[in-house]
Amino acid sequence: MSSNSKAPNRVSATALNAFSKALFVAKGVSPEHAQTMANALTWADLRGVDTHGISRVPMYFRLLDSKEMNASPKLKVLQETLALTVLEADRSAGPIAMQEASDIAMKKAKSTGIGLVMVRNTTHTASLGIYSEKVAQAGMACIALAASRPNMGYYGAKAAGVSTAPFSMSVPGPKGQAIVLDMACGIVSLGKLQQLRARNEPLEPGWALDAEGNETIDPQKALIPLPLGGPKGSGLSLMFELMASLPVLNPLIGHFFSDKEDAQRHCQNAWIIAIDIAQVCPQASFQDEMENTIKALKALPVDEKVGTSVLMPGERGYIERLKREKDGVPIPAKMQATLIELAEKFKVPSPF
Amino acid sequence: MSSNSKAPNRVSATALNAFSKALFVAKGVSPEHAQTMANALTWADLRGVDTHGISRVPMYFRLLDSKEMNASPKLKVLQETLALTVLEADRSAGPIAMQEASDIAMKKAKSTGIGLVMVRNTTHTASLGIYSEKVAQAGMACIALAASRPNMGYYGAKAAGVSTAPFSMSVPGPKGQAIVLDMACGIVSLGKLQQLRARNEPLEPGWALDAEGNETIDPQKALIPLPLGGPKGSGLSLMFELMASLPVLNPLIGHFFSDKEDAQRHCQNAWIIAIDIAQVCPQASFQDEMENTIKALKALPVDEKVGTSVLMPGERGYIERLKREKDGVPIPAKMQATLIELAEKFKVPSPF
Repeated sequence: MSSNSKAPNRVSATALNAFSKALFVAKGVSPEHAQTMANALTWADLRGVDTHGISRVPMYFRLLDSKEMNASPKLKVLQETLALTVLEADRSAGPIAMQEASDIAMKKAKSTGIGLVMVRNTTHTASLGIYSEKVAQAGMACIALAASRPNMGYYGAKAAGVSTAPFSMSVPGPKGQAIVLDMACGIVSLGKLQQLRARNEPLEPGWALDAEGNETIDPQKALIPLPLGGPKGSGLSLMFELMASLPVLNPLIGHFFSDKEDAQRHCQNAWIIAIDIAQVCPQASFQDEMENTIKALKALPVDEKVGTSVLMPGERGYIERLKREKDGVPIPAKMQATLIELAEKFKVPSPF
Repeated sequence: MSSNSKAPNRVSATALNAFSKALFVAKGVSPEHAQTMANALTWADLRGVDTHGISRVPMYFRLLDSKEMNASPKLKVLQETLALTVLEADRSAGPIAMQEASDIAMKKAKSTGIGLVMVRNTTHTASLGIYSEKVAQAGMACIALAASRPNMGYYGAKAAGVSTAPFSMSVPGPKGQAIVLDMACGIVSLGKLQQLRARNEPLEPGWALDAEGNETIDPQKALIPLPLGGPKGSGLSLMFELMASLPVLNPLIGHFFSDKEDAQRHCQNAWIIAIDIAQVCPQASFQDEMENTIKALKALPVDEKVGTSVLMPGERGYIERLKREKDGVPIPAKMQATLIELAEKFKVPSPF
């Protein structure tokens, strides 16, 4: 076995959180913002979404270097109606804007039943599940989505046309937990393609295109993930762009394909909707029905090819979280080396 | 060639609309409601969604006979906040409730920016695209979804656990047209399985389960469509149930698996959200960005395996509509015979 396949080092989430916060502070981010960014990464690391955890620090550093991400953003409400807010994110890291946006959406929902915040001009949104879980844990339902620049095939075209766009829905679940669906519109993620490339494992047919826009199963050539269900996945992603980017006049697809100098810049827009279901029905009745529904689904015959029990949306991540809170987060050797390098460069104590 | 494969009769949409309206009236529905129901079927027939057009009349008749569908429903607002309404549909045909719900959602959105109507206790919702297109043509963005009883596999289980749940998103498009995504959460529709059964054509692997919950490609055994993208499709469908059915205390999954006498009853719940984007940006600017985005995507290299041009969500249906408005709607011989039988039974002039 190669050295790559040895069991990765496990580090406590608390240590990773403090480490990534310290790195962001060393890079010029305020302690408060650095904490919010670190919390978003830790949330993903604990739930096993390794592509959105501390592994993102080098990408955030690159975006801060190129000024695509603003180290000291000033968030600003651009427009406001009774139930809708447009929040200018000033190129902040996604978590900073989404944290603020989810708070505003819940406040609006408390007052009118439903609140929508359109987040304009943010950067890497991180896992949408963080924010939709937070809304659900506060007793509300949530719908969140984000638009990004093209990196996924568009059905009917032999090229990237839309993004792998994330989408999340959540509701309050039993015992204060939330039921959180957190998905993207691609049939596979970019992270998965990178993983297969590193391991030189072939793709399944229909997963990705090469640079020329032809379908390939060669992991060294696969570049562009294909959309989930053809026109469904690419249609969803396009609708997110048309809804989240156009009304705030910050188009990502149109801009990407323009001849503007910064056409390739990293930029995102997002929506978060909170619905105060407590205004519609008593929480206890909702939870009774929730428990009945979960019980009915968990009583179905299990597909042993998939697992040992029927899981609810987000439950796999929840189980992983319990495990990782106890055992720590596995950090692959290569990523650890990159992070140690950053720690040395920025004179931040490393947890490794 | 068998007689089944001869070109079907084509009938004008206007004649089909008048015919289905007359049938509903003969069955005891008020002329106003019958018109709304007929319009929903015609919308689908024109766009080539043949499973949701006049072919549904026999199903609606069965539901009226069994009283699962109410021929003279009294719609009632159960709850109301500034931006949210719960509409009791009194087992009305879906189009009657959704028509009313989309009007209320738009009125709410005009006043607060975003409006949500939770439709409780409706029956077959028909194509969600009808209502989301209407909202978009009025200059607003729309999100609509419906919950129904289990008829699709739930990821990780060897049985139907959730429904093929429809979902629609729309925005105002160029020249008064709307961009309408109208999809369901299954990898194939129940209609498609029926079609393959009739033609005795094998399925593709991963499309459906048989009655025992095992994957099959045998069209005579395939019963339960599998979800789009495994946990993504079944997770989406479950979230629709948790959001649309539980807060209005009309659970469909929990009820279906209960030992109640009417556990198998047909019943649906739905959501329609309207967002008044005109309160956020000038319509002309939105349309400029829309045209740029469409132009960019249509300039991508075409995948000739799919078609001769890159299409926007809903565009295939729009093109079909233009064709069918001119040439009429094709009516397969078997369906025509069924409809003629109904016409004779209810003494309604038939257009065939």
